[in-house]
Parts: sequence; structure tokens; C-alpha cells
Amino acid sequence: MQPSSKIRVCTLAALLSLSVAALSSSAHGADAPTRPKTMQELLDASQPADWRTPDPRDTLYMDLDAGRVVIELAPAFAPAHVDNIRTLAQGRFWDGLTLYRSQDNFVVQFGDITEEGGTPRPIGAAKAKLPAEFARPSAGLDMHALPDRDGWAAQTGFAGGFAAARDPATGQAWLAHCYGTVGAGRDMAADSSNGTELYVVIGQSPRQLDRNITVVGRVLQGMEWLSVLPRGTGALGFYDVPAQRAPIRSIRLASDVPTAERTALQVLRTDTPLFDAVVESRRNRRDDWYKQPAGHIDLCNIQVPTRVPPAT
Amino acid sequence: MQPSSKIRVCTLAALLSLSVAALSSSAHGADAPTRPKTMQELLDASQPADWRTPDPRDTLYMDLDAGRVVIELAPAFAPAHVDNIRTLAQGRFWDGLTLYRSQDNFVVQFGDITEEGGTPRPIGAAKAKLPAEFARPSAGLDMHALPDRDGWAAQTGFAGGFAAARDPATGQAWLAHCYGTVGAGRDMAADSSNGTELYVVIGQSPRQLDRNITVVGRVLQGMEWLSVLPRGTGALGFYDVPAQRAPIRSIRLASDVPTAERTALQVLRTDTPLFDAVVESRRNRRDDWYKQPAGHIDLCNIQVPTRVPPAT
Repeated sequence: MQPSSKIRVCTLAALLSLSVAALSSSAHGADAPTRPKTMQELLDASQPADWRTPDPRDTLYMDLDAGRVVIELAPAFAPAHVDNIRTLAQGRFWDGLTLYRSQDNFVVQFGDITEEGGTPRPIGAAKAKLPAEFARPSAGLDMHALPDRDGWAAQTGFAGGFAAARDPATGQAWLAHCYGTVGAGRDMAADSSNGTELYVVIGQSPRQLDRNITVVGRVLQGMEWLSVLPRGTGALGFYDVPAQRAPIRSIRLASDVPTAERTALQVLRTDTPLFDAVVESRRNRRDDWYKQPAGHIDLCNIQVPTRVPPAT
Repeated sequence: MQPSSKIRVCTLAALLSLSVAALSSSAHGADAPTRPKTMQELLDASQPADWRTPDPRDTLYMDLDAGRVVIELAPAFAPAHVDNIRTLAQGRFWDGLTLYRSQDNFVVQFGDITEEGGTPRPIGAAKAKLPAEFARPSAGLDMHALPDRDGWAAQTGFAGGFAAARDPATGQAWLAHCYGTVGAGRDMAADSSNGTELYVVIGQSPRQLDRNITVVGRVLQGMEWLSVLPRGTGALGFYDVPAQRAPIRSIRLASDVPTAERTALQVLRTDTPLFDAVVESRRNRRDDWYKQPAGHIDLCNIQVPTRVPPAT
């Protein structure tokens, strides 16, 4: 992935030459000069056990006119919010509500805008009040650390597929705000979110939000339906005109959706040697295009690969 | 700027209470508890000398159907490319061409797509071949360093308003890839860009591109016209269907545009004590919403403020 002046010519040629090189080096054995594999080559050689299928109970489908956004919830970090979001989805709380905010290089946000001045939509069996879930004990959390230092946190890595951070000094761990992170909007009080109003990061990782708000999950697929929404011209990207707000057809738990209507999707596991190799292939790009491998990668520059499950 | 469930209520109230607090602390003098100023308070107290007006010779207007994108060129870092881009704009090279690529969380790209297979548009008096301008000597560069460490470079900061990095070990400095950075697409060869094909970063800072491609400037205003373009469904975000490509009405140097049609815009200087204070106000958010100031900021999380020049 690079900005190229003749991308269709050069990239296809480059991909071809890389494939040939990969082929040659395995064909020629130990004598041939070895080149570290690219991410694509690593994924092509992956095994079924390198992938996982998200639990349908932890998967939200947000269906818009443009397409479906697939969100994976993070009960290991925000159990009370995730539980409430499940209840809200089962009560069809969001169906017919809108995406009412899109602020460039920051977030889109959705939920019940009438809460601000009209009659709020009833939340049914969901809880009106939840505890803040900004962080959790790092004990008991299987976090796979990254090799690089991070300025925002003592340590970063992935936990169950989620970009996370932890601090050995406090024994706390938390989810990081990266592109596609989903969180629960709140008011001034730390415990003023209940999961009805959610936001999704559509810009540069706003890591200053980490430990200041409850992160509930991340978008696995369909970011392009959120990121292209026209930016709101009101303060903070709110839409001035109600007609500008994109409608939400429905938000449902995948487990409540008939199997035939579910989105088949697998996610690369983040606790495997293959994932380590993928990260290294992004830390130091070794294809023919890059002249200077960075020798570094930021947590939020790592996009965990997803795929359509291969035919069996 | 925070994701909030009741933003119109709470943020206005919060802003009001902050203004009152700011007022109170200055009214009460040294006895009152002091709170560091927010960015907005700092900007409200700024002086004319804290702002600069970009040179019209270094300013590009990209006029789209949706609106104008204002780009500031960086001749201090890419003199040959900037010179060529000026020549191309004066020859109206891009007028009627298209934005032909939009890859989610990465870049949009524009120029002459027919170069790939049809008859390329003539470049007129511009040069077909330029040297790579990935980096420059840091000597002679007025770079204002940031206090925080960076994983990608030994040191980061701002040079003439641009996010930049430098390495004392090599004596080199270069522009960083942040949201809004504009670069010159290239082929496999380092010196294969000539400025005809440009890209703009619309996602998480792809710092791995630093020192691998020539950065020519950054978007000062109008990112929202680029970031909302539908993502291309072809490989790497290229548009499969020509009709999907957004047309470029014109790209002109501001100096070639009649004064009445220019966009009045000032940019906060990045070499002042005020700018240091602004950065600190973002490193540690001290408003009523943030519970845990980060104590850190990444280069690409700093958006240099711009404004419409105040009436004199």
C-alpha cells in the first residue's frame, strides 16, 4: 500500500515480482538470498488456526442505507456497557435513529438526538445508569505486547484482537483509541454513559481519550460507510439540519440475525507467532517499493487483518 | 472536543463554565486557584504576531464541485517538486482531471489517470524528471522541537508550520506523514515522481512513508471535501468506474487568483511561546471533561490552528 504515480502498472508488476521472488526463494532453498515475507505472503501461508470467528453474541451489525458496519464488542473491558448494548440492540433501540455527528479527523456519533431536547426514546429493559469502565485490572488479561515503545502508555499490544495498553505501575489495562474504535459517549460525569450514544473514531488516533471514556468495541468491517459521511457543519461536527443525519436501519446482535443474513468474517488472531511476523512485516517493509524500513510501528498503525472464511 | 452523549447541552455549559473560571481567575488575581488555559482560551488571547499568512506563491487552491481545498507547499523541503507543481498549476495541468483514488484510512490521490493506459496529458513547461526529495540537511532549518519522544524519529517538531522530524545522527530532517499531508506519488524508483500525481493522507498517520517518498505540503483547509469521497472499490482504493472519480475544476496558485477570489486564512505560528502553550494544553487537557490528562502528545495529534483573519 503506497501512493504511487502508476499504481496499476507498478503495483501489479511489483506484486508479481514479489510473488516470483517468494516462489524462487522457496524453490531454490537455503542457498537463495532470503527476504522476509510481506504481510500478504504471510497471510497467504496462514493456517486455519491462525484465524478466529468473532462470537455472534459479541458482534453488532449496524445496517445503513449504504451498507453494513460490523462491530466487535469487548466484554473483557466493558462488561456492563456491552451487556447494556446487547439489551438495547435486542430491544431495537437504535432502529430508525440516526448518525447525528461527523467531525472531520475525529469521530462519527449516533444514537438518540432527541435526548437533547425532545422526548427521549425509551431504553426498555436496558439500564439508564452504568459504572464508568475506563480501565480494568491487567491481571488475568491475555495481552500480547508489541516490541515498540509507546508515548501514551507504558506498554501496548493486543488483547483478544483489540488494541490495548497497560501500566505495570498501576496494574491497569485499557483499550486504546485507534481508527475504528467504538466508545460510549458521556457527559461531564465519568459514569454518565449508558451505551445509548456511541461514537466511532474516523481520524488520527485520539489517544488522549484513553482512560477518559468507556471503549466498548471496534469496527471489523464497513468503516468506509462511516468515514465518508458528510462532515457536520454545526459545532463539533453535529449536523445542523436534521435531514443531513444518516438513518440507521437497524442495529442487531449477530446472534439475533438469521444465519443466512450474517456476514461471514474471520479475524486474524493476535496471540500467535504469525501475528508477530505480520507486525514485523509492517514495522520493516521489505518490498521493492520501500527504500527505508521504519524499524518501528505504532499500535494504531496495525490493522488486524480480516477475511471472508475460505470455502471448505 | 470529546464524544459526548449530550454534547450540545454539556459542552456549551462546560465552555461557559470554563470562560467564567478564566474570567474569575484573572479578576481575582494571584489568590484565586489557577487552572492552565485551554487551547481556545489561549487562541482567544493571541496577538496578531502569533499568526502568519501563507505566501500566495506557496499556496495551492484545489477547487472541487464540493468546495475548495487549500494546500500550503513546502519549498524548504521539496524545492524541485514545489517548483514543478507551481509550473504545472500555472499551465492548468490538473484542470479537468480527477481524484481517481480513495483508500479508506490511507490516502486520496489525484492527477492524470490516463497516464496509466491512454495518452498522458502534456506537462507543458514542467519537468518530467525530478530528484527524490525525501529528506534535507537539518542544518539551517528552524525546527521547533516537541517535548515528547517519538517512536519513528529521534526528534519531532514543527518547521515553518509543518510537522517534521530530524535525526542528529545523520543530520537529516524530513516532513512527517500526518492527516492532511500532501505528497508526490512515485513508482518503484525513488526519483520517479514529478509532482503530477499527488496524494493526501486521510487516515491514521502512515509514518512508515516518511523518508520513502517526497512530501510537498499539507492541507490547511478543506480536508472535509477529500476525506468524504466514496472509497474506491478497486485494488488500493482506485475507482473501478470512471464516473466515480470526482472532477477537479482547477488547481491554481493563490498568487495567480484574483485577490477577491482568494481564501482569507491565517495559520498559527509554530515557533512562538503561544504555540508551546497550545501544545501543552493538548498534552494535558485540563478542562472539566477530561479525568486523566495524557501527559503526552504525538506529532500528528497536533493540528496547527487556522483562522479567518480578524476584521481590522
